[in-house]
Amino acid sequence: MIKVLITTIPFGDPEPRSLEVLKNAGIEYTINPFNRKITESDLIEIISDYDGLIAGTETISKQVIDLAPKLKIIARVGVGTDGIDLNYAKDKNIKITYTPDAPGPAIAELAIGFMYSLLRSTHSANLQMRDGKWSRSIGRSFSDMTIGVIGAGRVGSKVIDLINKIGCKKLLVSDVYHNETLRELYEFEWASKERVFKESDIITFHVPLTADARGMVQKEQLLSMKEDVLIINTARGGIIDEDDLYSVMLTGHIGGVAIDVFDQEPYTGSLINIDRCLLTPHIGSASRECRAKMELESVEDIIRFFKNEELLSPVPESEYFLQKK
Amino acid sequence: MIKVLITTIPFGDPEPRSLEVLKNAGIEYTINPFNRKITESDLIEIISDYDGLIAGTETISKQVIDLAPKLKIIARVGVGTDGIDLNYAKDKNIKITYTPDAPGPAIAELAIGFMYSLLRSTHSANLQMRDGKWSRSIGRSFSDMTIGVIGAGRVGSKVIDLINKIGCKKLLVSDVYHNETLRELYEFEWASKERVFKESDIITFHVPLTADARGMVQKEQLLSMKEDVLIINTARGGIIDEDDLYSVMLTGHIGGVAIDVFDQEPYTGSLINIDRCLLTPHIGSASRECRAKMELESVEDIIRFFKNEELLSPVPESEYFLQKK
Repeated sequence: MIKVLITTIPFGDPEPRSLEVLKNAGIEYTINPFNRKITESDLIEIISDYDGLIAGTETISKQVIDLAPKLKIIARVGVGTDGIDLNYAKDKNIKITYTPDAPGPAIAELAIGFMYSLLRSTHSANLQMRDGKWSRSIGRSFSDMTIGVIGAGRVGSKVIDLINKIGCKKLLVSDVYHNETLRELYEFEWASKERVFKESDIITFHVPLTADARGMVQKEQLLSMKEDVLIINTARGGIIDEDDLYSVMLTGHIGGVAIDVFDQEPYTGSLINIDRCLLTPHIGSASRECRAKMELESVEDIIRFFKNEELLSPVPESEYFLQKK
Repeated sequence: MIKVLITTIPFGDPEPRSLEVLKNAGIEYTINPFNRKITESDLIEIISDYDGLIAGTETISKQVIDLAPKLKIIARVGVGTDGIDLNYAKDKNIKITYTPDAPGPAIAELAIGFMYSLLRSTHSANLQMRDGKWSRSIGRSFSDMTIGVIGAGRVGSKVIDLINKIGCKKLLVSDVYHNETLRELYEFEWASKERVFKESDIITFHVPLTADARGMVQKEQLLSMKEDVLIINTARGGIIDEDDLYSVMLTGHIGGVAIDVFDQEPYTGSLINIDRCLLTPHIGSASRECRAKMELESVEDIIRFFKNEELLSPVPESEYFLQKK
C-alpha cells in the first residue's frame, strides 16, 4: 500500500474532502504526528517509511532526502519551494509539485487587511486596551497613501487588483520583469526598489525567497524609508533582516509592521516586544476556501503520480535554476 | 475676548491648522486640561467660564448646561449628538453644530479593516504570538462572505461602497428608510434586521444611537446569528448590550467581534478577557485627514457664530425630535 506523510497542519480540517479523496484512491496517510510545525529533525525521525510527502514550508534537506529511500514525490501545499533542496531531490528522481495559483487571493486579502490594521494601529490599540489603556492615536486614510508593491507575480498582482479597486493616492510596483499585461489592466507606475522604499507610505513584499531576495531589506534600506512607513511581509521571512528591523524600530523609525513570515518558524524573537508590530503565525494561505483548494490540488497530483498520469503542477525548471545560483 | 473650551483630544495634532484659524479669528482657546476623555464632572468643574465648546462624545447634561451661563454654541467634532441634551440646550438658546460628512470615510475604512482582521483572526494571533504561541487558525475569504450592513446613512453608504468595490458573495442592507438612489448605485438587497442577523457571516452597525437603536442587540438577537458570525460596531456602544455579548461569547457562540465604541468610555469591562474581541478606543474618525477636516469644520462654525454669520452645519431638527421620543 502506498503511504503518504502529510506534514502541513491543519489538513482536512474543517474541510475533509482532500482526505476523503486520498482514502478513496487507496492511499494510506499519516497526518503530522507532532501536531506542531514539523522540524527537519522530526522529519528525519519518521520519513524513512513514506512513498509520498504532502509538505508545508519545512526544510527538506539533503539529509532528509537521504533518509527517505522510498520517497518518490513531494507535493508542496502552497507556492514557495525554498524549503526544499530541489536539485538534490531531482538527482534522487523525486518529483516535486506545488499549488501556485490557490494561495494568491488569501495572501492578498491578508496583506490588504494588514494595511488597514497598520493605518489605524488597531493591533496596538487592542494590546493597550487589555492593559487598561485608552489612548487614541490618529491614523491615516487608505485613499491618501502611496503604496509600494515589491513583486508583481501571482500574489502581487492580486494585491495590485485589490488596491486598484479600493483606491489609493499612488501605486508604485517594482519587479525585475515588467509584465505589460498587468500594466494594461491596472493603474500603477513601475518603479525601482529604491524608489519604492523611499517614496512609499506602505510597502508590501510579494517576492519568492530566491538568493536575490534574501536580505533584500537591511538597515540601510529601512533607514532609506519614510519615518512613519508601514511595512508588510506576507512573503518569506528571509527577505527582511529581523535583527535590523528590531534595532531600527527601537530608535522610533518605522510607523508599524505586519509580519506573517519569519526566518525561523515558529517565531520567538524580540519583535514581540514592540507593540507596533502586528505578528501572525504564517497564515497567508490559511483561509478555509484557499486551504481546501490547495489541499485538493496537492492530493490530486499525488494520486496522478501513483497512477502514472501527467502531473498538473510540477515545480517548473526555473525554480530549480534559481536555487542553483 | 471670546473663550472656547476644546474637550476632544487630540486636537490640532498632528495638523495644527484648526488652532491657527481659531487664533487668527481672535478666539482664545483651552484644550482639555485633563488630557484624557473628559467626564461630566470634569466639565462641571470648568465649564462656567466659556462662551463656546468644541466637543467630542462626552455627556453634556442639563447640569452641565446649567453651570455654563455664558455658553452660546457647542460645535460637536463628529456626528453623534446622543451625548448632548439637545432640547435642553435649545431651551437655553445654545446653538449646536456638528460635522456630519467628514467622519464617514474614516469610519468606513475602520469597519472594512475590522472585517479583514476578524476574517483571519489576526488580532488574536497577535496576542498569542506575544504569549509564545504559534497556533495557525483557518480563516475565511472576504469574497465568500454574506455581509449585513445595519444602517445605510452617511457611514453605512460608504461601507456599502467599499464592500461593492472589494466584492463579497451577498450584501444585505437594513434601514428603516429605503434610499433608492443608493439602490441604483450599488449591488445589495434590502433586508429586515432579523434577516440580516440570521443570514450574515459579518454584521456591521452604522446607526445613530436613537431610542430605537439602544439595546437593538441583546441575547436573543445574538443567539439568532450564525455560530461563527463576525460582528463589528463602530457606531455607538449602547447598540449592543455588552453584558449579553460577553456571556454569549463565553459559551463559544460568535466567531469574533471588533468593537470601537462602548457604553461607558474609557472602557474597562470584561470583553478584554476574550481573545477573539478586537477592541479599540473610539478611533472611528481618528485618521489624520478626517480629523483635520472635522476640526476645521467645527472651528469654522464657531467663528461664523461669533461673527453672526449663518452656520454651516447646525444639527437638524430631526435629531432634536428623535431625542424627545
